[in-house]
Amino acid sequence: MEQTFDHSTRYEHVLDAARMLEGHVHRTPVVTSRTLNEKIGAEVFFKCENLQRMGAFKFRGAFYAVSRLNETERRKGIVTFSSGNHAQAVALVGKSFGIPVTVVMPNDAPVTKRDATMSYGAQIVAYDPAVASREMIARELARERGMTLVPPFDHPDVIAGQGTAALELIDQAGSLDAVLAPCGGGGLLSGTAVAARGRCPGCRVIGVEPEGADDATRSFRTKTLQRIEHPKTIADGVRTPSLGKYTFPLILDHVDDMVLVSEEDIAQAVRWLFYRMKLVVEPSGALGLAALLGGAFSGKGKIGIILSGGNIDGPTMISILEEGKARG
Amino acid sequence: MEQTFDHSTRYEHVLDAARMLEGHVHRTPVVTSRTLNEKIGAEVFFKCENLQRMGAFKFRGAFYAVSRLNETERRKGIVTFSSGNHAQAVALVGKSFGIPVTVVMPNDAPVTKRDATMSYGAQIVAYDPAVASREMIARELARERGMTLVPPFDHPDVIAGQGTAALELIDQAGSLDAVLAPCGGGGLLSGTAVAARGRCPGCRVIGVEPEGADDATRSFRTKTLQRIEHPKTIADGVRTPSLGKYTFPLILDHVDDMVLVSEEDIAQAVRWLFYRMKLVVEPSGALGLAALLGGAFSGKGKIGIILSGGNIDGPTMISILEEGKARG
Repeated sequence: MEQTFDHSTRYEHVLDAARMLEGHVHRTPVVTSRTLNEKIGAEVFFKCENLQRMGAFKFRGAFYAVSRLNETERRKGIVTFSSGNHAQAVALVGKSFGIPVTVVMPNDAPVTKRDATMSYGAQIVAYDPAVASREMIARELARERGMTLVPPFDHPDVIAGQGTAALELIDQAGSLDAVLAPCGGGGLLSGTAVAARGRCPGCRVIGVEPEGADDATRSFRTKTLQRIEHPKTIADGVRTPSLGKYTFPLILDHVDDMVLVSEEDIAQAVRWLFYRMKLVVEPSGALGLAALLGGAFSGKGKIGIILSGGNIDGPTMISILEEGKARG
Repeated sequence: MEQTFDHSTRYEHVLDAARMLEGHVHRTPVVTSRTLNEKIGAEVFFKCENLQRMGAFKFRGAFYAVSRLNETERRKGIVTFSSGNHAQAVALVGKSFGIPVTVVMPNDAPVTKRDATMSYGAQIVAYDPAVASREMIARELARERGMTLVPPFDHPDVIAGQGTAALELIDQAGSLDAVLAPCGGGGLLSGTAVAARGRCPGCRVIGVEPEGADDATRSFRTKTLQRIEHPKTIADGVRTPSLGKYTFPLILDHVDDMVLVSEEDIAQAVRWLFYRMKLVVEPSGALGLAALLGGAFSGKGKIGIILSGGNIDGPTMISILEEGKARG
């Protein structure tokens, strides 16, 4: 893995993304819970990216990356690979700009996500994640058809766009003592870290992963890129085998700690957000709260949590709610 | 029924409530959906009272009514009767002010609502709704123990407090062409109507009821108070037998129309809010959207919808989501 780049994401890059996104993304609300604050002895600010357009922060990075393409690139179209939210985001952005979109998607992707992607007019290329690499398929399509690849996380513009969520959160909540973001490929986490460093230098940045998908935590600890081929977790949005060549160094440089949460912690957080906050949050989106409720992270003062998305299948939510009932 | 009062709720009363509530209630977000707007050819603004403290607009009216009690009244405590959200609201307000609260609640009230009410420290008096009147029980308790009755809707202060949600909505969204509110006892609807008349005189005010609980619609059409003893609807928040002596005249004077929605319309709206808006909304809270999606109401321009609450039991949400799956 290369460790030096010309284009690593800087704070100014996030500020530029924020300017470009104005009027195109929702400035999503920040909500609070006195009950939670009393329970944990801190002030928690939830950034509701589940209420973002197409239901996840991914719209930010996709929009910013696509908005920077030139006329020729736009005409030839874009291709991406994604387990879901990024696919929908690129599809919706492509539709807004009138650019043809092709999405390489695993054949076991959640039905909600596949349907939503198709409803935005994108063409789907399905593949079997057990036998093929989505990235290789996407790169091949890009080469064959002259399309531009807009990867789900490992791209400076995508990272800068994702960082705008934390930028807004800090503007809305005021200076934070810590911010927690889920970590899959690290696009949101590295963007969050760059934004927090720039806007609020005293803020600790914490990445959260499921125990069954702990590659980034191990990469962070060992300072060597680690992989997990088929991570096992209900949090489908962070089933990414590894960090990328842009996100890994940014995380090493700017993230203060990585913590792990159990599948029970995740389910508990999804239920808590459902019953107490009246928010539909997908398992990946609930990782920050899972760390707080399950005890993987504890902190005082003002804590920001990025609820990264809300695209959960009915059956998954039903089983999480039923599990809660069974456990009383 | 008397038809003249000294204390009917005026716009100035709503403005006073808004001043008193500042800093004590959430200024809940207003959210929009481009997909919905394109589908129906109007601009819809959802006022998220499901994200209000204790999960419903009811906190507004309860807080305002209790904040106006004097020292002696506060010492002797308050009593109320409610199928749920108002009970939680009064319990939480009582806790905030350090005032003892007694709640008369039907023995078939949703478990979530009963538990939440008790968790705020209120004493519950359960009754069988098939054989007794909750209002009579509450009035007797008030007389015996010198407590002040804070009824769930039929009280000028409660109505004024509920009106503050529409006031905020109009401030957040700008002038509206129509606003839709659910109608049970009519506290929210009459407060909304008074607020809208004062803030935005050209705005049409529409009340929405389930077909199986159409007493207010029939009262509105016949100009004579109608009752339904045991209304049958999944929307438990509006299972009120009739409008009250304050709410009925206000609704006759200030509401433009009443519309009815089917149980299927309600379930469809709850699912739509879950999947598309990532919001947990209880069936009563989804009545406005049910009217729009089901066709009971259609309008152009800017339409406000008050999502009145989000306190839904797990089993109820599960059955609504499963029903959607079965219907494809």
